[in-house]
Amino acid sequence: MAASQPANPLPPFAVSLGDPAGVGPEIVAKSWMMRDARSLPPFFAVGDAASIRAVWTGPLTIISAPEEAGAAFKDALPCLQVAEAGDIIPGKPSIEGARTALHALEAAVGLARSGAAAGLVTAPVGKAQLYEVGFTHPGQTEFVAERCGIARENAVMMLAGPSLRVVPITIHVALADVPKVLTTDLIRSRAITTAKGLQRNFGIAAPRLTVAGLNPHSGENGTIGREEIDIIIPAIEALKAEGLDISGPFAADGLFHARAREGYDAALCMYHDQALIPIKTLYFDDGVNITLGLPIVRTSPDHGTAFGIAGQNAANPGAMIAAIRMAAEAARHRLAYNG
Amino acid sequence: MAASQPANPLPPFAVSLGDPAGVGPEIVAKSWMMRDARSLPPFFAVGDAASIRAVWTGPLTIISAPEEAGAAFKDALPCLQVAEAGDIIPGKPSIEGARTALHALEAAVGLARSGAAAGLVTAPVGKAQLYEVGFTHPGQTEFVAERCGIARENAVMMLAGPSLRVVPITIHVALADVPKVLTTDLIRSRAITTAKGLQRNFGIAAPRLTVAGLNPHSGENGTIGREEIDIIIPAIEALKAEGLDISGPFAADGLFHARAREGYDAALCMYHDQALIPIKTLYFDDGVNITLGLPIVRTSPDHGTAFGIAGQNAANPGAMIAAIRMAAEAARHRLAYNG
Repeated sequence: MAASQPANPLPPFAVSLGDPAGVGPEIVAKSWMMRDARSLPPFFAVGDAASIRAVWTGPLTIISAPEEAGAAFKDALPCLQVAEAGDIIPGKPSIEGARTALHALEAAVGLARSGAAAGLVTAPVGKAQLYEVGFTHPGQTEFVAERCGIARENAVMMLAGPSLRVVPITIHVALADVPKVLTTDLIRSRAITTAKGLQRNFGIAAPRLTVAGLNPHSGENGTIGREEIDIIIPAIEALKAEGLDISGPFAADGLFHARAREGYDAALCMYHDQALIPIKTLYFDDGVNITLGLPIVRTSPDHGTAFGIAGQNAANPGAMIAAIRMAAEAARHRLAYNG
Repeated sequence: MAASQPANPLPPFAVSLGDPAGVGPEIVAKSWMMRDARSLPPFFAVGDAASIRAVWTGPLTIISAPEEAGAAFKDALPCLQVAEAGDIIPGKPSIEGARTALHALEAAVGLARSGAAAGLVTAPVGKAQLYEVGFTHPGQTEFVAERCGIARENAVMMLAGPSLRVVPITIHVALADVPKVLTTDLIRSRAITTAKGLQRNFGIAAPRLTVAGLNPHSGENGTIGREEIDIIIPAIEALKAEGLDISGPFAADGLFHARAREGYDAALCMYHDQALIPIKTLYFDDGVNITLGLPIVRTSPDHGTAFGIAGQNAANPGAMIAAIRMAAEAARHRLAYNG
């Protein structure tokens, strides 16, 4: 797959449109309009072109295969039509729309798997609607992992902004259950995938990981909770013995200010909000979700369908643009990493 | 206590020096040096003048009563000598130092209680050392509350920076215990104290409170934890019925970016790191801890003794300066609030 022309060795990127009634079509179109200003690589939309036309009057061209996207991209947003969502009313999700979103995701994963696309960028889906059409995964990440033949526990979600990368060790777990779900093995596994992911996707030869404690003040030597001593420190010690550059656990509240962020390449966080609060406080409009541990590049904007503002030309494409740029960066690093 | 001269109706502020081997003496001296540039009100140090002389060669004057501080402040840092810490080695805490810190705190609280000082600003203490000299409170806040005749559960810690104020509903509680400690009554009580504190100390006539959920995505209607439904929403409904402008619970990760912060005057957070991560991510060097619910003004810089850098002229006085400024602001608002 690695072509011999270094100038532009990559095929175009596949961008699934997500729920056709969400902000996905709008932010994909707006990203295309910024293709030169933000140096975006060639990409094509995957979904129902009508969902783009419902919110955008710019130039759109239907392509029949990914290889047409490169030439078309300069003058129009290329779209690979994979299904029709029926009547599309922005802001009003429907069953047909959910089916279309699922078809688009499936098709885009397949194109990335085959090498026809250099990577996969996914616009947001409406989970409640997807569940109604038989979707059984917690989210797109787990679906993509399954289609790639990767166990979902080995696909690691990283949230990334310009000066911070975080990995939640547990994700959609009620806070009361986090201490029960957290294990030394889980931390070890996520840390190893994260370190390898930083090498492959970000070109960081010797990644530096930091680890947040679970409890206030990282437990203060066991006086405010023992998970640091019983679970987290054993994982860090084991990982150090395996050669990882990893440190902690540290009090989470001191880990995310500007000087602290300079000290590591990624922070491993014990639960959802411990990771998501700092990244969204700093990068609400341009945070990227990148899945580590997959054979393909996969990124997405770190926000939802935003049905409430869909169709009003009010959606900020910043996170989608950042997701496409990060996919391109990851794909280029992978070429180098794989030789 | 409210004098009739509006130009400068307030007595000076008492600043306890904290542990004499910590950064307290240095940041108090550095704050005094910035008194004009940062428009600081007259204040005086309370503790052992030798701890300042150990790290600073600027002009220092020993005063025998707070009323001497106003005239002295222009030309020298006034210090009320309350105890002698013995040999002071910056960075090396001692039992004598801990005793001095406690005496200084006790004296400064008394001066603020009596009205001789317009308010109390506390430099950081070393808790481990304080425990060795018989201190039984979790921290300075609870000690000050007790000396003011306020039950510790009615003294509310707020962390404040230029664009964000947060109140942790639970504080030094192991994460696993947070769901057990969190009650509807606790949230109600903290919210009422917070609203009143914003009126009294910040001059906000109609404070807007927002409430973070406990679980990821604020529980997603009970599918990721039920505390929002069982504990938090009943508190919010009761507070609304009592006339408070309060909203939530909202997903914590979306509450702290710049646009979100414009929508409220304080965020009530369910646990320590939910509150401390955003404030320290944004304002690590100038965050202020202000205690609400007390009869006196009390602020402190939101950092510790930093024994590791004490005596190296490396401590940043930003948070101490911000704490003194916030104390002055609070004292002025209280004059207006009390009529």
